[in-house]
Amino acid sequence: MSRWAIGIDLGGTAVKAAVVCEERGILIDRTILTETASGPAGIIGQLAALVASLYRLACATLAPADFAGVGVGAPGAVNAERGVLSYPPNLPGWGIVPLRDELQKFLIEKEGLSVSVFLDNDANVAAFGEAVYGAGREFRDFLMVTLGTGVGGGIVLNRKLYRGPHGTAGEVGFMIIDFEATTLHAGIRGTLESSIGKKGIVDLARRMIAANASGSAVGKLCNNDFTKLSPIHLERAALKGDQLSLAVWQRVGSILGVGLANVTALMDIRKFVIGGGIAAAGNLIFDPALDQLRRSTLPSMHEGLELVPALLGNKAGMYGAAALCFGEP
Amino acid sequence: MSRWAIGIDLGGTAVKAAVVCEERGILIDRTILTETASGPAGIIGQLAALVASLYRLACATLAPADFAGVGVGAPGAVNAERGVLSYPPNLPGWGIVPLRDELQKFLIEKEGLSVSVFLDNDANVAAFGEAVYGAGREFRDFLMVTLGTGVGGGIVLNRKLYRGPHGTAGEVGFMIIDFEATTLHAGIRGTLESSIGKKGIVDLARRMIAANASGSAVGKLCNNDFTKLSPIHLERAALKGDQLSLAVWQRVGSILGVGLANVTALMDIRKFVIGGGIAAAGNLIFDPALDQLRRSTLPSMHEGLELVPALLGNKAGMYGAAALCFGEP
Repeated sequence: MSRWAIGIDLGGTAVKAAVVCEERGILIDRTILTETASGPAGIIGQLAALVASLYRLACATLAPADFAGVGVGAPGAVNAERGVLSYPPNLPGWGIVPLRDELQKFLIEKEGLSVSVFLDNDANVAAFGEAVYGAGREFRDFLMVTLGTGVGGGIVLNRKLYRGPHGTAGEVGFMIIDFEATTLHAGIRGTLESSIGKKGIVDLARRMIAANASGSAVGKLCNNDFTKLSPIHLERAALKGDQLSLAVWQRVGSILGVGLANVTALMDIRKFVIGGGIAAAGNLIFDPALDQLRRSTLPSMHEGLELVPALLGNKAGMYGAAALCFGEP
Repeated sequence: MSRWAIGIDLGGTAVKAAVVCEERGILIDRTILTETASGPAGIIGQLAALVASLYRLACATLAPADFAGVGVGAPGAVNAERGVLSYPPNLPGWGIVPLRDELQKFLIEKEGLSVSVFLDNDANVAAFGEAVYGAGREFRDFLMVTLGTGVGGGIVLNRKLYRGPHGTAGEVGFMIIDFEATTLHAGIRGTLESSIGKKGIVDLARRMIAANASGSAVGKLCNNDFTKLSPIHLERAALKGDQLSLAVWQRVGSILGVGLANVTALMDIRKFVIGGGIAAAGNLIFDPALDQLRRSTLPSMHEGLELVPALLGNKAGMYGAAALCFGEP
């Protein structure tokens, strides 16, 4: 009775795919390594084989008549309306690929499967996954921020993805919060990502360690080799009470709060779902971020301000991709 | 045959009202001083009398059957759906006023006019005016920025006003572009308005004059009394080739470009209509702003970037308020 779909999260390292039941969530999931060397044609073949295998497996218990299609979240710029992916980073050799139609054609011709295919970019798909199955279920409007190597974003307005006039909306990591800074990010000065992307956090910590005479317990965690310093060391040290690491997270959270304040000022969005590996630092980031968000917005905009952790982890992409097939809720 | 409406721009100093024909634009307009001392009841009486007088005048040549209603643009936070105005700045004694319904009631009871009334805030109404009658006619999506004492904004998406979930969207002046700055604006550090609102521009010019040994021709224009320095002096001096004044506008435009880049990154908006008194400086601001906007956005977002001057000047509010009555185009 309940509809189901196959959701795919296409990444530069791995392809994650799942059979998702609209009501019960993920039933089966698979991860394979992306054959990046084989280019678009090879990867489309991988995707099709994965879809066919999951489809046949699922049909042992689910009705083919209830199958809603295949959704794909892909890195890079996507024109969701036309199903076209442009220059995905981490997928060498890809230019402008009509991925939706090519996958659909491949599925019919090589796998004998005639199905609908939906495509969107990974940040949008993750936001939509959280909207339908995760931390955004109760929010009509929110921004999902992914804190990791980069700082990405996806916008849900009125329970629909907001893609913008050209499909590039939600690039929250490229918002400029410190235009006189020396840090650069893709040639742009003082962006949110240059400050609190993984590299920005590590650079900040190194500067604070160098300037701090009383030392930090974080050194022990990376064998005093600060070229190996990573956010996970800073998280562990902070949880053990290391003052310097606590100060690093305080500042990271505070800068995140400034970025979110810009979203509130411009779009009147007051709910934020925070995911990605760096978000594992939890309240070390969330508390200063909410505090700074309130201090950086007008009192008339304080009502309803809320930051919540994402709930779906690295499954958000598969959930969101499948949800594209079920239509906007 | 053609529909018509009355558009009102309610300000802290003056009330501007016009009879606007949907096809031919403004036919008659009036400006009266706002009786701020008389509070909401007094001002609603002023508005009603003005509407009644314009309505009767218009009915000499226009058909009452084609009358679409009265639109009002008001300062402060407006809930357009409920027609409620909250704490308008420059209108002392106003708290939360259901202005739409009260004006409608007053018009029926005191003036014998049964008409539809529409209400929105002044920044939105000006943006909508430019969308329907001005510089935004060709744009499906754009941000209108008003550069004056403050820096305000109104967002048009898909030819409709984007008000946001709580009706406070478009506060572009409150976006933070320099979070470590010392300048404050309503208690918030490093906002766009604190940098390039009227006061920010004058403060910047004073700092640059103080730091500049070779002097500036702008001194002569304000009788060397720099407490009287205003953007108009800087504009005149720049147009005469004064290097320092040119450098001030270069920097103001560049900072504006940073703010607009944030709008492009987040919302994928690439068209900007720039109005307000400060925008009279024209290409002194526009050229560096567009240049900085391009340098502050990803190459994939450069296509279609455009800054254009607003066309309706201080009539945008009346036009936009009337356009509210004609419905979204």
